[in-house]
Amino acid sequence: MSQTTPNHTQTVSGWAAHDNSGKITPFTFKRRENGVEDVTIEILYCGMCHTDLHYAKNEWGITMYPVVPGHEITGLITKVGSNVTGFKVGDRVGVGCLAASCLECEFCKDSQENYCDQIQFSYNGIFWDGSITYGGYSNMIVSNHRFVVHVPENLPMDAAAPLLCAGITVFSPMKDSNMLNSPGKKLGVVGLGGLGHVAVKFGKAFGLHVTVISTSPSKESEAKSRLGADGFIVSTNSKQMQAERRTLDFIIDTVSAPHSLGPTLELLKVNGTLVLVGAPEKPLDLPAFPLIFGKRSVKGSMTGGMKETQEMMDVCGKHNITCDIELITPDEINDAMNRLAKNDVRYRFVIDIAGKSNGST
Amino acid sequence: MSQTTPNHTQTVSGWAAHDNSGKITPFTFKRRENGVEDVTIEILYCGMCHTDLHYAKNEWGITMYPVVPGHEITGLITKVGSNVTGFKVGDRVGVGCLAASCLECEFCKDSQENYCDQIQFSYNGIFWDGSITYGGYSNMIVSNHRFVVHVPENLPMDAAAPLLCAGITVFSPMKDSNMLNSPGKKLGVVGLGGLGHVAVKFGKAFGLHVTVISTSPSKESEAKSRLGADGFIVSTNSKQMQAERRTLDFIIDTVSAPHSLGPTLELLKVNGTLVLVGAPEKPLDLPAFPLIFGKRSVKGSMTGGMKETQEMMDVCGKHNITCDIELITPDEINDAMNRLAKNDVRYRFVIDIAGKSNGST
Repeated sequence: MSQTTPNHTQTVSGWAAHDNSGKITPFTFKRRENGVEDVTIEILYCGMCHTDLHYAKNEWGITMYPVVPGHEITGLITKVGSNVTGFKVGDRVGVGCLAASCLECEFCKDSQENYCDQIQFSYNGIFWDGSITYGGYSNMIVSNHRFVVHVPENLPMDAAAPLLCAGITVFSPMKDSNMLNSPGKKLGVVGLGGLGHVAVKFGKAFGLHVTVISTSPSKESEAKSRLGADGFIVSTNSKQMQAERRTLDFIIDTVSAPHSLGPTLELLKVNGTLVLVGAPEKPLDLPAFPLIFGKRSVKGSMTGGMKETQEMMDVCGKHNITCDIELITPDEINDAMNRLAKNDVRYRFVIDIAGKSNGST
Repeated sequence: MSQTTPNHTQTVSGWAAHDNSGKITPFTFKRRENGVEDVTIEILYCGMCHTDLHYAKNEWGITMYPVVPGHEITGLITKVGSNVTGFKVGDRVGVGCLAASCLECEFCKDSQENYCDQIQFSYNGIFWDGSITYGGYSNMIVSNHRFVVHVPENLPMDAAAPLLCAGITVFSPMKDSNMLNSPGKKLGVVGLGGLGHVAVKFGKAFGLHVTVISTSPSKESEAKSRLGADGFIVSTNSKQMQAERRTLDFIIDTVSAPHSLGPTLELLKVNGTLVLVGAPEKPLDLPAFPLIFGKRSVKGSMTGGMKETQEMMDVCGKHNITCDIELITPDEINDAMNRLAKNDVRYRFVIDIAGKSNGST
């Protein structure tokens, strides 16, 4: 579709998957001219989210090929539309999951654009002009200014890139549940991957008692010594799980593989909330008893609104929070995808799109 | 166990299941003497809850046979312990699901005894003296006064009995979610059975817009014309379900058979809550997408605390709310159980324990 949109005249080099093999190859395509509400961004880095893998392989059955993945984008502004305020050429900026929303509904008006029912994503979405959106596995992007945030000067652009999805995805439910102002409360983080390790960092920055819940006993020392977690529970160890029941106020479940929520729910205090931020393609098992006996909640949360994304970035600047990454070159994307499918990454792959590998741009 | 407890000297006639056939037969057993904190109640009526069926047939695998079911009990006080205030001989009272709790934890102190982790139920529980509790399918019960409520004078004792479980089970989450003070908000009730039909009555009494969601198109006219529901959705009609997506603030799901929560969740507005009060023996299917895209919650709720049970009774008195019942004699219990298993009841069986079938005692 985008190829037939008249004002899509800018040629962009990127990387796309073309079928459900998920194999990523170089791909040249067109983007729109910079409109009056747009900024154009030279992409420096793009994180690799597990969602990219789902789309590349069409695991959710909704992929429109060719798909250019990537929604953890950092770069520099090269052009600014005439109606845009707050951004100038050369600004260090980030683009996350959102490309468009209706701008008029109650959610858009409250900067909860992520819950607008006209939401369109940064890739595999349909933009206002009818074109299919292409993501950050590319050297340039044109974005409506509303969906762009500033990256604090003290944060390296490579390690900051995954904050645009992994970071805001865990920050938003933490803010929503008042975890930013509840020092001493007990947070559980299920899964120590791209999202989980940032959740641990946020938890510690907010003064929470943080327990990591993982299937991998080998992650305990890293969780505690490097990320600062206070506790560690091996989820397959029923004795440990039993000993810790009714101890946590809040749990962020970042696991994107199908799993039962029952054992994890038992860790929550009465009235506690488990927020689900992973999106397994198959339904999760939800046993009624741990939910009912503890008046517990399972809540969903999807990325964040733009105002809170900027707030999250500023919080990261203040606390010097970035992601732990493995920086790769574009020709390593397929290898990285394969490792991602096995959760073999500490903790996020970031593609050095522009070849400026020191990250400090 | 109860038979060997020294002060269990009172002989009681009741009805019990003795194995997982679930067949109920007459059963004579002992109850404790009336202690200083106890009241003794001549049981007039006892409702038949779906939980009774689960226990009679050991469907949850935790039944201690013989089991005397029944936790929707109304009757008259015949004896009052010396430390008991607030009750006198002749009082019209009710006993629900709870027989004991620790009385000392934060939940007991806040009269949320239902979430005390030492909670013991009115049957198939272990009382403080080590005896197994026997429920309301019997002609007399001895209850700690804390777990007894007054039944308003204007309510018939037979139709009031199911309020002790069905009523409080839906009232508690409605109160918890501020539905008592949100006129005009939109409530969905999934399943029009014992719990569901009371939820509709409460919803209308609180000025809510009530939509019944059911698999049975045949229930529409009754839901609307007799119970006063404003809307009706056939849950298997995907066109109807689609048309009503994002319209409800709050849903009470009363279905106790395993089912997927996905289609129902789509009916909720962003940030809406579905409260699960049924307890299917198998895990429910919880697809992540409708949860995540709508920031929706699935919350559990189990019966209610004693203070709110009395409050619920008083609300029922004020609004003249009771259950729609089919009154049966004790020798009809097995037939009723069979019909209950097929959800063939409008809307609750109540056993006329004392043979005073006019209900107005």
